[in-house]
Order: sequence, then structure tokens, then C-alpha cells
Amino acid sequence: MPGFTKLLTPREAKERYARAYTPRPRGTERVPLAEAYRRVLAEDAIAREDLPPFDRSTVDGFAARAADVSAAGPDAPAVLRLVGEVQMGETAPVAVGAGQTVRIPTGGMLPAGADAVVMLEDVDERDGQIAVRRPARAGDNVIRRAEDVRRGEVALRPGARLRPQDLGLLAAVGITDVPVFVRPRVAILATGDEIVPADRTPVGGQVRDVNTYTLAALVRQEGGVPQVGGIVEDVYDVLLRALRDARRDADLVLVSGGSSVGEKDAVARAIGELGRPGVIVHGVSIKPGKPTILALVDGTPVIGLPGHPVSGMVIFDVFVRGVLRGLAGRSDARPFGRIVRARLAQPIPSAGVREDHVRVYLEQRDGEVRAVPVLGKSGIITTMTRADGVVVVPIGQRLLDAGTDVDVHLFEP
Amino acid sequence: MPGFTKLLTPREAKERYARAYTPRPRGTERVPLAEAYRRVLAEDAIAREDLPPFDRSTVDGFAARAADVSAAGPDAPAVLRLVGEVQMGETAPVAVGAGQTVRIPTGGMLPAGADAVVMLEDVDERDGQIAVRRPARAGDNVIRRAEDVRRGEVALRPGARLRPQDLGLLAAVGITDVPVFVRPRVAILATGDEIVPADRTPVGGQVRDVNTYTLAALVRQEGGVPQVGGIVEDVYDVLLRALRDARRDADLVLVSGGSSVGEKDAVARAIGELGRPGVIVHGVSIKPGKPTILALVDGTPVIGLPGHPVSGMVIFDVFVRGVLRGLAGRSDARPFGRIVRARLAQPIPSAGVREDHVRVYLEQRDGEVRAVPVLGKSGIITTMTRADGVVVVPIGQRLLDAGTDVDVHLFEP
Repeated sequence: MPGFTKLLTPREAKERYARAYTPRPRGTERVPLAEAYRRVLAEDAIAREDLPPFDRSTVDGFAARAADVSAAGPDAPAVLRLVGEVQMGETAPVAVGAGQTVRIPTGGMLPAGADAVVMLEDVDERDGQIAVRRPARAGDNVIRRAEDVRRGEVALRPGARLRPQDLGLLAAVGITDVPVFVRPRVAILATGDEIVPADRTPVGGQVRDVNTYTLAALVRQEGGVPQVGGIVEDVYDVLLRALRDARRDADLVLVSGGSSVGEKDAVARAIGELGRPGVIVHGVSIKPGKPTILALVDGTPVIGLPGHPVSGMVIFDVFVRGVLRGLAGRSDARPFGRIVRARLAQPIPSAGVREDHVRVYLEQRDGEVRAVPVLGKSGIITTMTRADGVVVVPIGQRLLDAGTDVDVHLFEP
Repeated sequence: MPGFTKLLTPREAKERYARAYTPRPRGTERVPLAEAYRRVLAEDAIAREDLPPFDRSTVDGFAARAADVSAAGPDAPAVLRLVGEVQMGETAPVAVGAGQTVRIPTGGMLPAGADAVVMLEDVDERDGQIAVRRPARAGDNVIRRAEDVRRGEVALRPGARLRPQDLGLLAAVGITDVPVFVRPRVAILATGDEIVPADRTPVGGQVRDVNTYTLAALVRQEGGVPQVGGIVEDVYDVLLRALRDARRDADLVLVSGGSSVGEKDAVARAIGELGRPGVIVHGVSIKPGKPTILALVDGTPVIGLPGHPVSGMVIFDVFVRGVLRGLAGRSDARPFGRIVRARLAQPIPSAGVREDHVRVYLEQRDGEVRAVPVLGKSGIITTMTRADGVVVVPIGQRLLDAGTDVDVHLFEP
């Protein structure tokens, strides 16, 4: 690896990596419905019966034949004979014949013969008869059998994280054992001779391990299972061994730090030695995050992220998130809500040579949403904690003027 | 409870409930940093030391005195004598005197005497000397001690869910034992004589329990712990006993179904009997979701939701979410990303008498985001699974025209 002799743009890097590797879930498993929230559905969920399984009333009222009540009005009420009452959860005890009606609660099962429900409020009741003051047509105040989902129909497609309403629909059609993709396991290693565990007080030139925590949380955010490998000495042999161990039980290996090009660039060498084809991209025209490694090792993706926490988070967003979503089986990249249009409150200068990911916070002022740049080097982690998202300045652009409308890529809500 | 004699608007209902009750977290606890993702910070996180703890280089290069290199240029290089090398994680072995320089890696600790770093690329090295071809000023390529966070400063304020970068900052300042609010426990009961467990095949007029699943997932979404109480017979005594049991270990009780006004309105009566002050709001001008109960029982909020799953989810969003956030200790209601501006693709008629929550899906077409109404009664759960969010039609408005710009309140991303 001769170093950053030819930096690829983020797009070129993604394309090159995508040609070499397509992430796919390791397999599927079945989980109880109560544990399926945010899991990714792995198969078509097919309704085995009609939903609802019978015609249901949507109101408290009286089931009737539309033919009997379609001409009813305040001056010409339709008079029907009350012949029974539907109990919740039970089959109607009698059918509704011409001129007849049956009392029915909201959600009750429509009796045979009836095809409409008149609302309690539109009826006068006396001596076993009701007078309907308002017309009803067939289907009024009724949800018909299978109106929601028909037997054999696909209730939900795979590839999306299950939301509360999706679980509700699965419950409604009786799918309580849900086929989902297994969660991707993501090994996380941190290297760098200056790194000490976060619970130790750094001395001399040491700093605490930050990336293990940020990366593990980002992995959780995407539904992955972080496997924390801890801090690894920035020495070729040690790295090689740690990477081999990490790879064994992981679907993706992340290693932060040590990926700069220098005398001690042990990470790229170790990844290259690990398996085939090895390093596919080393170095990307992005700021922050230039010393990024995208590698593939005998089928397992291995990604080297910069040691600076902010750079690592940006690179996660640009390169890792998509891989992880693929491993998780997600094909539902709906962008809505992730990008917010805002007016830039201050100019953003850029060197123009790398795609610049600038942190901003959002504020509502004078009826508009403003994006305020959070200035500071990528070694400054508070630039991330004070920010709501990033604005991307493309390669070649040297300035975004104040007042420009920009897309802010939000961190999670 | 005389029934829905005077329906409050959603706003009036919220205000009346807010006057009676302010949700607050039950307490705090400490969790390991690795488990703090998405928990709500309960106290100011105060840095006990400077971050970074020393001046750090942001590049691979040479530490120098700015005075020596501030006038350097391609034609007039500054020549410095190389007197040592900084190792990662170690204190510099020598100080940098006038005319001297020390090799330093990215992230290395600046030696005493140095106040700038010149980049490797801007230097020619030979025979123990370097020639600097580009000027550097004091602070160039350096992150100063405490530039990120100063000792004693508040690194993070309480009341927000911890994001990946927040965990990173806590790690960086050595807070590995994080004070967070305890998760609110939310009891979930479903009532209705027609309801059977989701794993049972409904017969006669029965339908499966849906709300237990949708509500439990919504509670999880807000960081709460659902306590599923299952299906409770819609009978006063049984409900009263179940509510008493549920209340004992819960910070919030949700009961879905049975809250319509009718002969069998056992839920409102049971809640009223449970404790003081009892039912505060019963019935709201909202569609779907009219038969909503907001109650307070000896300090515990009890909310009755409609039995229709769609109505229940809308009412969760309008009334429960805010209570749950209060119980979770969240004070960070940042709306960005939750609301998307879109152009209405089809007209939405409304009766105008209730605040109308209409499900829509979003699509990108011809460069704009369009909101397409998902038509269907509130008993149709696929209106929720096909939707991305809701558009609210205010009381009094009888039509939203196609082409209108509307705010779409997104479901979770």
C-alpha cells in the first residue's frame, strides 16, 4: 500500500467497494411478536385469514337492511322492529329480516341479513321499535369482512424495520412468531498507543478510548450487535491476531485509529494480510475522515476508521451505515425526516479539495429553520455533541454563503 | 360520568390534564457507559479534567516554535534541527528550543516549547535537519489543552437521550458510570369481550388483541418498560381489580378499549373508583379517538384509549407520548425531523367538528415531496402500516385542497 497517492471521492470509493462487495444478512430466525419491535422482517407476512374475519359495526347503534332505511328522514322516519341484540365477541343470535333491526355495539359482528348500521344518535327507541331519522346506505358504519386484509394477501413486505403499527397488523392476522433477519454482529477494535480505557486516568500523552463507545452506539442504532474487542496495541502482529479473532464471529469488523499513512501504518498492512482481496480503498477525499480503509477479507467486510472520534462518526455515516443496513437486511431507505432543509446562518468556507462534512445545529428563528455551523477541528468531540446534523460541501465548492438553503443530514432524532 | 356531553378540543383536554398533573421521573440510577445509549441523562455531566489533557498535534509532522517558522516559504525555507521524536501516548522526551524541532505523529503530545506543528508534506528532511517550505502560526495543526472541554465545565446537560456522540464525550472525560433517570414502567391492559390473544384463532364475533402489541412498542419507542397485563374482561369488578394491580408497580397505566360511553362503560367507572381525583377528561373532539379518558389516580396517570388500534395509536401520539416523555425525564422536545413539509396530492375533506388526524404516505415526485392520504376507517389497521405519518386537519376546517402545503407528522423513522 503506497499511501494516499490517489484519493478517491466518497462516491468513487463507495462504487468501488460496492463492485467488490454486497452486504447480505447472515440468516433468519423467528422471534416472538412481543420482541419483534425494530427487527427487520425477513419474509412476506401473508394473512392466513380475512381481517376483519366478519362484517363489523364501527358505531354503537342498530343493524338493519339498507333497503329499509335508505329513504329515512326526520319527517319520514323508518320504523323497525327490534328483534335482538348483538353481544361483543359473539355471533348475532338472530338474522335481520325485512323491517327488523338488532341492537349492536361498536365492533360487534353484523347479523346475517343486515348490511348497514344506523347510529344510536339517529334513532328514537320505544316499545320494542326504533324510528330511524336519518338514511343509511349499504355499508354505512360497517367495516366489511376482509376490508383490511384479505386471506392470502401480503400484509407486510420484508426489508423494513417493524414499527408499532406493523406489529399490530401482524397480531391482527395472527402472526405471533415473526421471521426476521438475524442481527449483524459487529466487532469493534480501537488501536493507537495513546489510547487507554475510558475508566483509566490518562497520563503523559494518553487519551481515553472514545470510539469504542460511539461506534457501539451507532451499531446499536442500526440494529446491530456490537462485540467490543477493546484496545489493541498498534503493532502489526498484535493487530493481525486481534483482527483474526474479531473476524471469526463477526459479520463486519470495525477498527478505529492507526489508519493514517505513516511508518507505523500497521492497520492497513494487517488487514491486507488477513485474507483476500484485502484493502480495496485506502484514503478518501473527505473531511474529516481521509484515512479510511474499505476492505474485504474472504467475504467479511473490514472497515478502518480514523482515530479522531468526529472523523470516525462521519465515516460511519458515509460508509459503514449502508453496509450495516445491508447486513441487517434493510431495503427501506426512506429518506424522509432524515434530511431537513434549512437556511445557512453563517458562511461555510471550504478548501474545495475534499468533500467537507460540516457539523451544524438547527434553530427555529423568525419562522424559518436555520443551520448554524459548529466550528472546530475534527478532534473536538463537542462539535458533534453540540450539533444536530451535518451539511455536506461538495468537492470543488469553496464557499457556502450565509442565506443559502442547505440540506442538513440529521443525526438520529 | 354523564358521557360526552361536552367534548373538549385536544388542546383544551391537554391543558386541563396538565393543570392536574405534571409527569416527573420516579428516580435516578447509575448505569455503565456501555449501556447508556438512549438513556436520559439525569444530572449535569461535569468534566473533572481538561479535554484534551494536553496540547495535541492534529497531523503527522514536526513540532516547532511558530516564531521560527512564521516567515517560512518555498523560496525561504526555515531550517530547523531535529532533536527528537514524540511517541504516541508518551510525554515528549525533549523540549523544543529556538531553531529546534521534534518529530510528532497525529494525536501526539506537543513538546514543551513548541506551539505549532508543520505538516510532513511541507517539509524536506535531510541529515538531521528539516527545511520548512510553508509558514505556520502559533496554534496551527494543534488542538490546545482544554479546547474541547475545560475542567469543571458542563459537558452535557440533563434531559436528553444520550446519542452516540454524547457517549463519546462522556468517555472522553472519564464518566463511565452515568446518572440516568429510571425508565418509566407502563402497565398495558386491553379490555373488550371480543378480544382474544393474538395467538388464538378468533371465532364468532371475536378479534385478536392488537393494542397490547402496538402500545408496548410505542412505550419502548419512548424508552419506557411495558408491563403487559393482557386481556381483561370488560366487567366493572374485574377491571377495577386489574387496574388496582396494574397501578401498584407502574408509573403510567394504559387501558385500551371499553372507553366508549354506553351501558357497559365499565372502564371510566372503574378508573373513577380507583382513587382521587379520578377521571379528568372523558371524550375529546378528535378523529379518530373521541372516547379518550385522561385520569389521575392518587398521583398515577391512567389513560383510557379507544379500542380501535388506529385510534389508540393516534391518541398515544397526542396524549400519551408527552406524559411518557415527562416520566422519562426528557426535556429535549426538538421537533426537527419529526415534521416534514409536503404537498398534498389529493384533497382531504373533513366534517369540521373534530380535529382530524389523517394518515398519509410520502412520495418523492418531480422534485417535490407529496403527501398522499391513505383512506379508510380507523378500524382499518393497514391505513397505519401503509402510512408514513399524519396530517392534522384543525377543527372548523372542512377541506384541505390538493396542492396545499401541509406538515406531515412522521411516525418514527
